[in-house]
Amino acid sequence: MARLFTNIALTGNWRDPKAGESIATLSAHLLERGCSVNVGGAYRGPELPGTVRRADDDTLMDGAELMIAVGGDGTMLYAARFAVDATVPLLGINRGRLGFLADVSPAEMLAAVDQVLAGDCEREQRRLLHAEVESESGNASGTALNDVVVKRLDSGRMFEFQTLVNDVYVNTHGGDGFIVATPTGSTAYALSCGGPILTPQLDALVLAPICPHTLSDRPIVIPGNSRAEIRLRERDEDAAAVCCDGDVIGHIGAGDRLLVTASDARLELIHPPGYDFYEILRGKLHWGRSNRQSQRPG
Amino acid sequence: MARLFTNIALTGNWRDPKAGESIATLSAHLLERGCSVNVGGAYRGPELPGTVRRADDDTLMDGAELMIAVGGDGTMLYAARFAVDATVPLLGINRGRLGFLADVSPAEMLAAVDQVLAGDCEREQRRLLHAEVESESGNASGTALNDVVVKRLDSGRMFEFQTLVNDVYVNTHGGDGFIVATPTGSTAYALSCGGPILTPQLDALVLAPICPHTLSDRPIVIPGNSRAEIRLRERDEDAAAVCCDGDVIGHIGAGDRLLVTASDARLELIHPPGYDFYEILRGKLHWGRSNRQSQRPG
Amino acid sequence: MARLFTNIALTGNWRDPKAGESIATLSAHLLERGCSVNVGGAYRGPELPGTVRRADDDTLMDGAELMIAVGGDGTMLYAARFAVDATVPLLGINRGRLGFLADVSPAEMLAAVDQVLAGDCEREQRRLLHAEVESESGNASGTALNDVVVKRLDSGRMFEFQTLVNDVYVNTHGGDGFIVATPTGSTAYALSCGGPILTPQLDALVLAPICPHTLSDRPIVIPGNSRAEIRLRERDEDAAAVCCDGDVIGHIGAGDRLLVTASDARLELIHPPGYDFYEILRGKLHWGRSNRQSQRPG
Amino acid sequence: MARLFTNIALTGNWRDPKAGESIATLSAHLLERGCSVNVGGAYRGPELPGTVRRADDDTLMDGAELMIAVGGDGTMLYAARFAVDATVPLLGINRGRLGFLADVSPAEMLAAVDQVLAGDCEREQRRLLHAEVESESGNASGTALNDVVVKRLDSGRMFEFQTLVNDVYVNTHGGDGFIVATPTGSTAYALSCGGPILTPQLDALVLAPICPHTLSDRPIVIPGNSRAEIRLRERDEDAAAVCCDGDVIGHIGAGDRLLVTASDARLELIHPPGYDFYEILRGKLHWGRSNRQSQRPG
Repeated sequence: MARLFTNIALTGNWRDPKAGESIATLSAHLLERGCSVNVGGAYRGPELPGTVRRADDDTLMDGAELMIAVGGDGTMLYAARFAVDATVPLLGINRGRLGFLADVSPAEMLAAVDQVLAGDCEREQRRLLHAEVESESGNASGTALNDVVVKRLDSGRMFEFQTLVNDVYVNTHGGDGFIVATPTGSTAYALSCGGPILTPQLDALVLAPICPHTLSDRPIVIPGNSRAEIRLRERDEDAAAVCCDGDVIGHIGAGDRLLVTASDARLELIHPPGYDFYEILRGKLHWGRSNRQSQRPG
Repeated sequence: MARLFTNIALTGNWRDPKAGESIATLSAHLLERGCSVNVGGAYRGPELPGTVRRADDDTLMDGAELMIAVGGDGTMLYAARFAVDATVPLLGINRGRLGFLADVSPAEMLAAVDQVLAGDCEREQRRLLHAEVESESGNASGTALNDVVVKRLDSGRMFEFQTLVNDVYVNTHGGDGFIVATPTGSTAYALSCGGPILTPQLDALVLAPICPHTLSDRPIVIPGNSRAEIRLRERDEDAAAVCCDGDVIGHIGAGDRLLVTASDARLELIHPPGYDFYEILRGKLHWGRSNRQSQRPG
Repeated sequence: MARLFTNIALTGNWRDPKAGESIATLSAHLLERGCSVNVGGAYRGPELPGTVRRADDDTLMDGAELMIAVGGDGTMLYAARFAVDATVPLLGINRGRLGFLADVSPAEMLAAVDQVLAGDCEREQRRLLHAEVESESGNASGTALNDVVVKRLDSGRMFEFQTLVNDVYVNTHGGDGFIVATPTGSTAYALSCGGPILTPQLDALVLAPICPHTLSDRPIVIPGNSRAEIRLRERDEDAAAVCCDGDVIGHIGAGDRLLVTASDARLELIHPPGYDFYEILRGKLHWGRSNRQSQRPG
Repeated sequence: MARLFTNIALTGNWRDPKAGESIATLSAHLLERGCSVNVGGAYRGPELPGTVRRADDDTLMDGAELMIAVGGDGTMLYAARFAVDATVPLLGINRGRLGFLADVSPAEMLAAVDQVLAGDCEREQRRLLHAEVESESGNASGTALNDVVVKRLDSGRMFEFQTLVNDVYVNTHGGDGFIVATPTGSTAYALSCGGPILTPQLDALVLAPICPHTLSDRPIVIPGNSRAEIRLRERDEDAAAVCCDGDVIGHIGAGDRLLVTASDARLELIHPPGYDFYEILRGKLHWGRSNRQSQRPG
């Protein structure tokens, strides 16, 4: 059998014993299929076949042509960094409930992997964001698959900041913070802040204020090649943390600014055939099951 | 055995064959327990025991001490009118999925009925609304368990109206309409319009604009003994329908007004022991099952 | 002076005396600049110069190279139909408060018109929607600048329908109806239904449920070249009106469907130099003026 | 002239020079009316009359029968603590824009004060909250006029917690945190989190999740005498800060809990005659000024 991928890197949510079991099963299966397998060094689980190569973060992607991650969407975010850096596609096996990114269930795992190895799969590019913090206390940068978030973390009070798009002033916001999200991230934090769902193919970004002081301060969707800027005022005593996919990458204070643009890098997601974004939405959002009391007869 | 209730009126969602089956089972069970049973004349289902009294709308509640309705929340709204008029408590058996009002499942139906007959149950008063339409084209009035709604039905355009509470001017609204809801109705239409959930015990009303033109036009919760008024302007070409629990009771046009107050009447709901409002909320609202993509490890 | 446009069609909100006055002033000014002027036949206002040509709907656009509308955004929607049919650009003069589409104030009207005539202006293409009703009771079609809306108009009860995008099933919705909006329409009805703001340049559509039964039934943004479909179920007793920019164009019932795609036609909007979409947003949405009680010292 | 109040304590937003000017004007005016005046020690502004008593935090309320605060709602929250402890009513003079709590404008300040001294005023009781943190790392407690908030401050990730009302389990939430608000606080932070507006007279509390993971996790309004509890799970690595009116009073970690109940203490607010809560709402929320693009003719 011709294989689309021969060298596979495996990672997972090491704190979940079930993920470990799946990794062990996957490793054996992939070896049987003639693949070579790298597994992350923090692996905890059943003993792995001797020919599996145990790797640390620096060597995990050595020679890898495909990455498979076992866990939830949080694990996928972690794995995506390796996959993007190595320009290798990523396949996600979920443990427990279905994920937006980890969309293969454990039950169909081995069959799905065989399909993917045989090239019978769908490949999809997901845009990433590049964040640049320009701060008096030092610059920082980061990459995000979901979102770049500015948020006051040191106090319960709201803070104020300005936003610009392509150097044009948009608004002065008061509230808990601000989100710049990709279509991928539109179903993550931004969704909880009143943002819309963007289909993965849409070349656009969501700008969403977090708990805004002004009730008409609503999410804005802008073209994907835009540059978003968040600026703290000169005289302000406010300070805020900047997070990429939930991880703090730096801080901004008075007069500092954060720039967010589309990254040149993309994540390639692999899905088994028949991938259906709307089916995942229906499952995750419990669509079709009414929440409210009916006034219809019946 | 002492029975709390002897004469029982039964009604149901006659279009649902399963409801008919439940009514037949219930009838036989109640007769066995020594009760007398009235069943609504529109009943469709298995043949009923000969001692069951078939009644029309005018005689259904004759002598009844308890009403049992089999169906969804829409059926409960229908049954509530009979129960309130006859000042008789109401017990709801749901068919299919759990309801806010019909909270006994078919599986536990007979056991629950025995508990209720034995007096082992919880009794709860629910407030109703009284709606008074004062229109040039004639007055009308109605009663609602969930909500009184003003809504433009004849066109796709928004309309404008004023609201007052206890004769004090509140706001001029533009949009699709306006809802005055009881705590019971807070989980019905008002919930879809951004209204809060009110616990059944709270003596309060929700005022909720429907798709308001002004984004800060948010739901207001007022004391339960307030009088809400909706007024169309003198010069206005707008017209709107007034609905009680989804049924049109009249129309208002230029200069007309609608008054909504708490009704003197209350609905008594009967629940089997262990009734838990929050458990019903969790079930109906799919609480505890996250909708969004997680950024947590896992 | 070279003129970019010589033959001008004028229309306005004839019910507003101020609009009539502006039309009269504009007519005299345009004649002075050597233009020829058509004015709609329903014009009411001060007497117009004799050389102004009074036209009816069929002749209003005869020879016209530019249309100017005086009124609010509703007037602009009306004028847009003529401008699109005649493939002529449209300039909007607002009366009263600033509009999203009518963005020239009366005070700057004459100076702005001179700039536009001299070619010192910004020209912007706005996408339109094409709606196709396929109903057992007959087909219908329409064009919309803002939105195509399906809505139950004959009753206070919610109805149920299915949505598809590019023939892929999206969701089954219960609620008041559904909106397909352009970026232009994202600040109209869809905004009141929880939809996001789309910048005019974004090639995308908003799908927004109206008062949905399911709280996680959130707006979706899809690529602008998508085909959206709304379908009523075969067995359903539901019926709904289909509106283009607020006007009813047809009805759908059981088994019928509505198809919405981008229209080939576009509206060309003319703005005086310095047009800034975000400035209009800030004005219309009262941004920068906090709505809530502050907990900050001060 | 009989005076309802003779000994007055004055405080203000000392960082705002305008507030200092108002305090100086007020002091002179009150002395003229025969009142004695205490002014907070941090006062910065024009020189005060010699008979004004300069006081520190411990002596500010000595003998005071009325407190007047000059500033915004944040200053009112600060002043409320002194007023509540000394069981003295509080009158608020706003600087700049109208406040929910500081509802007397500088222009009408002296006339309003004269009315209040003469007893021509409205007195209103506002409920306060009592927060009790039961943590392994030590207990803490606090009082709040607006709200008690639990919030993860140390990271960009969401956290999970359980809520109970009167010892009955309500829900397990994931998100940024949780708010328990009074009617007074319903127009503060809770409003930005999708909470409803509660009229000041309503004896109720709002429970509002902050950016909840589950889209149907909506605000709940419960009776004012309820006890709300927020509990972190035993095994959780989550930790969160507890804030009263925006000030951190303590932290909770795994297995810890926060209890919130109505405080026995109340704040008495003084308003000049004609106080109208809805008028303040209309002003603060820019009601009556439509935000969205109109489709109506005009």
